[in-house]
Amino acid sequence: MPADEIGIKIFSGSSSINFAKKMCKHLGTEVGQSKTIIFSEGNTFVQILEKVRDKDVYIVQTIGLHPNDDFMELLFLIDAFNRASTASVTAIIPYFSYAKGDKKDEPRVSIRARVCADCLEITGVDRIITMDLHSPQIQGFFKKPVDHLYGMPTLCKYIKSKKLDNLVVVSPDAGFAKNARSYANLLRASVAIGDKTRMCHDEKAEILNIIGDVKGKNAVIVDDFTISCGTLIETARALRNNGAKKVIACVSHALLGDKGLKALDESVIEELIITDTVENKKAFAHPKVTVISVAKLFADAVRIIHNRESLSNLFDAMITCVDEDE
Amino acid sequence: MPADEIGIKIFSGSSSINFAKKMCKHLGTEVGQSKTIIFSEGNTFVQILEKVRDKDVYIVQTIGLHPNDDFMELLFLIDAFNRASTASVTAIIPYFSYAKGDKKDEPRVSIRARVCADCLEITGVDRIITMDLHSPQIQGFFKKPVDHLYGMPTLCKYIKSKKLDNLVVVSPDAGFAKNARSYANLLRASVAIGDKTRMCHDEKAEILNIIGDVKGKNAVIVDDFTISCGTLIETARALRNNGAKKVIACVSHALLGDKGLKALDESVIEELIITDTVENKKAFAHPKVTVISVAKLFADAVRIIHNRESLSNLFDAMITCVDEDE
Amino acid sequence: MPADEIGIKIFSGSSSINFAKKMCKHLGTEVGQSKTIIFSEGNTFVQILEKVRDKDVYIVQTIGLHPNDDFMELLFLIDAFNRASTASVTAIIPYFSYAKGDKKDEPRVSIRARVCADCLEITGVDRIITMDLHSPQIQGFFKKPVDHLYGMPTLCKYIKSKKLDNLVVVSPDAGFAKNARSYANLLRASVAIGDKTRMCHDEKAEILNIIGDVKGKNAVIVDDFTISCGTLIETARALRNNGAKKVIACVSHALLGDKGLKALDESVIEELIITDTVENKKAFAHPKVTVISVAKLFADAVRIIHNRESLSNLFDAMITCVDEDE
Amino acid sequence: MPADEIGIKIFSGSSSINFAKKMCKHLGTEVGQSKTIIFSEGNTFVQILEKVRDKDVYIVQTIGLHPNDDFMELLFLIDAFNRASTASVTAIIPYFSYAKGDKKDEPRVSIRARVCADCLEITGVDRIITMDLHSPQIQGFFKKPVDHLYGMPTLCKYIKSKKLDNLVVVSPDAGFAKNARSYANLLRASVAIGDKTRMCHDEKAEILNIIGDVKGKNAVIVDDFTISCGTLIETARALRNNGAKKVIACVSHALLGDKGLKALDESVIEELIITDTVENKKAFAHPKVTVISVAKLFADAVRIIHNRESLSNLFDAMITCVDEDE
Amino acid sequence: MPADEIGIKIFSGSSSINFAKKMCKHLGTEVGQSKTIIFSEGNTFVQILEKVRDKDVYIVQTIGLHPNDDFMELLFLIDAFNRASTASVTAIIPYFSYAKGDKKDEPRVSIRARVCADCLEITGVDRIITMDLHSPQIQGFFKKPVDHLYGMPTLCKYIKSKKLDNLVVVSPDAGFAKNARSYANLLRASVAIGDKTRMCHDEKAEILNIIGDVKGKNAVIVDDFTISCGTLIETARALRNNGAKKVIACVSHALLGDKGLKALDESVIEELIITDTVENKKAFAHPKVTVISVAKLFADAVRIIHNRESLSNLFDAMITCVDEDE
Amino acid sequence: MPADEIGIKIFSGSSSINFAKKMCKHLGTEVGQSKTIIFSEGNTFVQILEKVRDKDVYIVQTIGLHPNDDFMELLFLIDAFNRASTASVTAIIPYFSYAKGDKKDEPRVSIRARVCADCLEITGVDRIITMDLHSPQIQGFFKKPVDHLYGMPTLCKYIKSKKLDNLVVVSPDAGFAKNARSYANLLRASVAIGDKTRMCHDEKAEILNIIGDVKGKNAVIVDDFTISCGTLIETARALRNNGAKKVIACVSHALLGDKGLKALDESVIEELIITDTVENKKAFAHPKVTVISVAKLFADAVRIIHNRESLSNLFDAMITCVDEDE
Repeated sequence: MPADEIGIKIFSGSSSINFAKKMCKHLGTEVGQSKTIIFSEGNTFVQILEKVRDKDVYIVQTIGLHPNDDFMELLFLIDAFNRASTASVTAIIPYFSYAKGDKKDEPRVSIRARVCADCLEITGVDRIITMDLHSPQIQGFFKKPVDHLYGMPTLCKYIKSKKLDNLVVVSPDAGFAKNARSYANLLRASVAIGDKTRMCHDEKAEILNIIGDVKGKNAVIVDDFTISCGTLIETARALRNNGAKKVIACVSHALLGDKGLKALDESVIEELIITDTVENKKAFAHPKVTVISVAKLFADAVRIIHNRESLSNLFDAMITCVDEDE
Repeated sequence: MPADEIGIKIFSGSSSINFAKKMCKHLGTEVGQSKTIIFSEGNTFVQILEKVRDKDVYIVQTIGLHPNDDFMELLFLIDAFNRASTASVTAIIPYFSYAKGDKKDEPRVSIRARVCADCLEITGVDRIITMDLHSPQIQGFFKKPVDHLYGMPTLCKYIKSKKLDNLVVVSPDAGFAKNARSYANLLRASVAIGDKTRMCHDEKAEILNIIGDVKGKNAVIVDDFTISCGTLIETARALRNNGAKKVIACVSHALLGDKGLKALDESVIEELIITDTVENKKAFAHPKVTVISVAKLFADAVRIIHNRESLSNLFDAMITCVDEDE
Repeated sequence: MPADEIGIKIFSGSSSINFAKKMCKHLGTEVGQSKTIIFSEGNTFVQILEKVRDKDVYIVQTIGLHPNDDFMELLFLIDAFNRASTASVTAIIPYFSYAKGDKKDEPRVSIRARVCADCLEITGVDRIITMDLHSPQIQGFFKKPVDHLYGMPTLCKYIKSKKLDNLVVVSPDAGFAKNARSYANLLRASVAIGDKTRMCHDEKAEILNIIGDVKGKNAVIVDDFTISCGTLIETARALRNNGAKKVIACVSHALLGDKGLKALDESVIEELIITDTVENKKAFAHPKVTVISVAKLFADAVRIIHNRESLSNLFDAMITCVDEDE
Repeated sequence: MPADEIGIKIFSGSSSINFAKKMCKHLGTEVGQSKTIIFSEGNTFVQILEKVRDKDVYIVQTIGLHPNDDFMELLFLIDAFNRASTASVTAIIPYFSYAKGDKKDEPRVSIRARVCADCLEITGVDRIITMDLHSPQIQGFFKKPVDHLYGMPTLCKYIKSKKLDNLVVVSPDAGFAKNARSYANLLRASVAIGDKTRMCHDEKAEILNIIGDVKGKNAVIVDDFTISCGTLIETARALRNNGAKKVIACVSHALLGDKGLKALDESVIEELIITDTVENKKAFAHPKVTVISVAKLFADAVRIIHNRESLSNLFDAMITCVDEDE
Repeated sequence: MPADEIGIKIFSGSSSINFAKKMCKHLGTEVGQSKTIIFSEGNTFVQILEKVRDKDVYIVQTIGLHPNDDFMELLFLIDAFNRASTASVTAIIPYFSYAKGDKKDEPRVSIRARVCADCLEITGVDRIITMDLHSPQIQGFFKKPVDHLYGMPTLCKYIKSKKLDNLVVVSPDAGFAKNARSYANLLRASVAIGDKTRMCHDEKAEILNIIGDVKGKNAVIVDDFTISCGTLIETARALRNNGAKKVIACVSHALLGDKGLKALDESVIEELIITDTVENKKAFAHPKVTVISVAKLFADAVRIIHNRESLSNLFDAMITCVDEDE
Repeated sequence: MPADEIGIKIFSGSSSINFAKKMCKHLGTEVGQSKTIIFSEGNTFVQILEKVRDKDVYIVQTIGLHPNDDFMELLFLIDAFNRASTASVTAIIPYFSYAKGDKKDEPRVSIRARVCADCLEITGVDRIITMDLHSPQIQGFFKKPVDHLYGMPTLCKYIKSKKLDNLVVVSPDAGFAKNARSYANLLRASVAIGDKTRMCHDEKAEILNIIGDVKGKNAVIVDDFTISCGTLIETARALRNNGAKKVIACVSHALLGDKGLKALDESVIEELIITDTVENKKAFAHPKVTVISVAKLFADAVRIIHNRESLSNLFDAMITCVDEDE
């Protein structure tokens, strides 16, 4: 049954127009009518252009390449829907850029992800759907339910299709080591870790060492996001220095600009696998880049939520045992 | 006694660096050390670089030419100060751009000023100081105290110094008529009003008429802000068509870009009087523009607040009788 | 289909018994059973006398001639409904008297409309329906949706039926000028404005001047409310002094007592047009007063909300272009 | 040291003007300057007339003979003080009338005391001082600290001075039995209880019986408040029927009107002892009424709070053992 | 129709497993699948094991013999349900132990029942169903609806079936006198009251006297809960000293341990009637104890709530006139 | 100057009596007087026994061996202090056991650390001081400032004093790898990681491999806490299998019971270094256990906070570069 008939109403903010269209195609519906204007003095203005009273509404808006504009637009959309008396408002945030600001690791800084969570909740969001947050703890920054999707199964399906033998999954640093273990489980591969120190805020990484055996192996570097490709490229170089064969990389969210794409071009990385959570035309068109769409994953999540089913079967493949903390 | 010794701590966000310096000069202190970085992917990051535990802190940050960036930076600064255990955090917002979004005058829009107010309060602001809000009701969008300063007395002092005889104060539309009456009281002038209709969102005004007598008079058009000079210029033209002599204009907040300044150049407006609430170098340098600084007004407000005195004497000159609503 | 069958449950507080009955008649239902007692020591007590669990409930209660009693009764009704586990509680406040206290225009006063908004929300109201608020910004005092109805189209329909030629719409002061422009648009009339100053709190107005041309015209003075008819009468007198022909007046909400009605009697105002938002028997019976009921407007709003339709088509006639702020 | 010098700022709402004066006399200070206006349409307006920035402010306002007006005025005062940036606002409510609405003892009624508590807290009160609440649990309706004073020691001191021998303390019903036991402890008397049933809301009591021995004894009936003297008089009659000698009555809060005073006149009650928490001139002047002021009790509480001392020594005399619940 | 088909979802925490089963049997459904683990270091962990998205969920969890463990488990269950996007979460708390901490009757203590109420509400409970709270005011500690059931009618039905003539209902102290009156009304009996003083926190009661006539009567002592049987036994002894015939006791909630049961064994109390709100195997098996199940009462309440009917008819028998406060 | 004179008031809950004493000794003050009772039915009761009005109060209470009792006692203490009108309440939680429940890593579980954070904040805590949280993101679960201390520098100082050459720091799993890197930096050692999978909730670990070189090295296994020593022992065994020489272990928080201590006894671990955040007499007395007190670290934090200085210099040694996320 098409989404329209079952009453799913999906709207898009200006940062996820194509992603929302792809989702709607999977659901057999159309993106709702709304408009966003940025006035000449810089103020963002939004208006919903169709009836939404008492509807369950989903807004797709990545907090991505212009995170401040994207975020404010999302807040105003949520408020507009609430004041129009919708039944509920779900924010679908394929990439939530400020998730990186998730701790107070230096004196007198802000925990920006919590600031964003509070603003979303005070403005009246009822639920969040997002993917591959920088840390899973961010769900706890929200009182409202957060449906946290994983890009890993979709990405691994593609990696498997490449039929690389003797594979090692490499985390560029200790912080992503736990996720690299999960990738390795799905890919039935071994694990290695970059043991590096990075200087503060200058985006230059300094690889100290590769812990674990990579000699003669095909390596896939995994991470949650990349901005400049810097970390990925230095890790790739270190892998080659340690005797790795083919080196590819796989990240959930790619914010690459011209500089990063040029660096990718010149690097030893043979392929960069990304998803389409950030609408990034130049990156999508780069010859070394493979884009794996997760729009169907989000569409499935919306359909499951709307049918009042359980999301947990979406994750069956990957949840072997994650409760190692108690 | 210099502000440092009496413990006033003033910090500046990146949109009000010069304004904060001017305020500090009046107070005999220095702007506090902090840093704001916009990372290459667009995320704003802030850090306070000096001890603030248990201090009463003032952050100067206009929400002006890049309102979304300015606003998010302000939120992160407030959170950083709170998590650093300051005694209180006062946001000084010389111009609060989103104050324009103060009502739901079309179906399914956001009341953006309330969204901003809620975000500021949930993030932990303790007080707001601002000037010439688009409507005085916006104070009621906040639970926290708002000290609302008026630029009018400072601006009128300058206008009086021009010794224009036979003066008429002109509001470009009915919405600002009440404020025009206050200007006229201070300037001992008469009042006229532009009776216009403007098309939705296209920023083109269409003057229908000037209500009130302007023939042979010197006219000062007053308004709270201008973006393109459009309304001011059309009003000015109508005034000349109705026989006005010299036409000048006076607005509290000026967001003018190149286009607006060029239009001003070619217009019949002889002088545009503005304040320095928005740091706008090109506008400040324009030959027709006169900038009246209100940094001292804000500095005085901070000193009065810090000394636990009453702000009301700041306004004595202008409060004749404003309670006409009951 | 009658309202009962579609499940609309309308209750009335003690200040809007007749208005609620009229609304219910339009909806084909009966007012719900409840009782309000004022005990001999002054305490208000309320009880709902029929089943309401999981119902969408509407309470009609004007905050009118006894605003403190009316308001407290409304709070207790909302709490009683919430503790009885209704699905939602909508407060229908035809006239919201404390909307006048919408700003801090003198030192150390309360913004009473915000106090009322906070009390309504903390007590658990889910939505507000009201008409002709003193300022549209008051919607922003609420987090919950406010459906703001306009009496103007209904009132203008009556005025048009009088077929007065050469009509001028007169705002008694600059504060209502913007609304007078809207009236004039609907009535295809010109506009004039009373340019007055009123002394603080003593309810004596002092007309300085009429701005705009009224000579030989039929004048309709418009305002949102009148208590003593004082402003209307002085404006009328000034209009006649300026050569106006017939003078009538039109206000949304009339709180007139004996004194005001007597003044009206003796004044040059030929007719006073009001709505029935405030149940005011003496005023309704006065020979110069014409009462235009807006009960159907509120009934239509309830039906539209209940059918999950959009209220915006209710306002089509009057919304030409209101977004003049950006 | 007089209160002024130590910085105590006491203001009075319109229901406690004399009580506040008495308190201030004990503290050696003057009541702060404020004004309350009830406009001709019924709206309450308040304004503070002196500097209060960063002061610890106390507002004295009984919720008494006009509970709705008294309560709304108190809310507006609290808001006015908060928006004037006081350091803290303490509401001194000698009698809190809506404390009676403390439970949901019938279907679909409001818990009015909780509604009032929520409104006070959302408006910004920081602390409450009150006396002889209808039930001690009401402290738990507030998140903010409530200092709950007891009138009993002051009242017992007076009763003791009457040197009545063979005394029995009588609770008019089971609900006040626990307090009657405390009175009896202080007066070294025995206890009896009226075992009655009262009809719903009609204020007529029907004494079934007196449980306990009263024959030949002097009886003092105790209760927290009286409106019509009805319960007290019927209890008195039953006591005489059961052989009691002299019958007097003692209540903390007296809301008596003409009717109640006339009934008292004609009753077998020889003396009615009350406090001055409700400003009730006629009752104060009645020949059978003895007024015991508790203004010093409240003044002492304010001084102790202001000196950051502990209130518990105020209650030493009466706290023998109250923790019978665990 | 069985509960499953009508969509009622009942889960049980670990303190009410049998009670939940009995409720479900009355409703024709099964208890939902969940698990609670207490890890070896003491942390409680909960997980829901079946689909609950958008369901109305009821959690049965008495706060009884291990109140801290029981309460924390309840909080975690509520959070787990909320984060699983249920439509609503109702906590069924047959016995709410911390209700005893309902006032601040000593200096510097906590009002523990309010702390618990706040924690339940902030964690996201939507409604509470409980029975025989220590004081009815505790409903006012919650903003969310509390359905307060009464065990009295069920208990009285059993007492009546014993056909004891010449019955007197005895409250062990003044605090429960009001409830004893209600019991007496239902049982058409007279009333007597223990006039005692108890020492602080040492659980030893010292009966001073029995007020009221008990000579030659059959006595039933009533109270809301018993821990050690101490108060009941001393009251029983005093009754016998005053000439009472048979003495039985009846309490809603029984927390008796070995010591209390032994004391009961040796006491003059012939029968102790309790409900099954606290799962207490040893007490249930004691020869002097009669257990009256209230599982059907709770099941009826759930069915009524689920069918959107009114709970008030559940109470018809007992509500004669309870509004004696105004 | 002793703490008493500078006004620091430190109280202790029942789980941290010795730790609080040690802190007070460092500060030259005494622990404040309070009492905690667990009644025979299981309810926790607390009372503060000295004057605290307007004081800045610190409560030391580890959430440790009886986490539910410890946590509820802490909530009641916070409420008691707030209702006693303290100026501020800081909770010092040396070990916060529920920090482990920091994410939703299985379907339909609770984020227990967020539940605890919300309960602490709604009850009125003003600040938290804690050490070595399970994940740094937990600071973001709180709106209130969290001062997060690190045990690492104190622990490393001791490890260095052992003068072990050729040292490798081993994280038992990928999750602690990032912290192991920090230890290694301080100890100028290399890093290795246990690459294991653990079964759900059964506390049995299955080491797959050691990634990194450990042959012939002295190894120190590091982790944030241990309950059964299980993970540490299996890691130690794997290290020995891979050729490590001496193996010691170092954890911040030790919750070991008899079973765990016996296992330690029999294991290849030569020494277990722990802090005194959990009062665990048996563990402290075990011959293989070395206890390093962090009471001075917490005392220093309190003194710094109280003197309104900055905590950041406490961490200077260890903060080289932590901002690797942007």
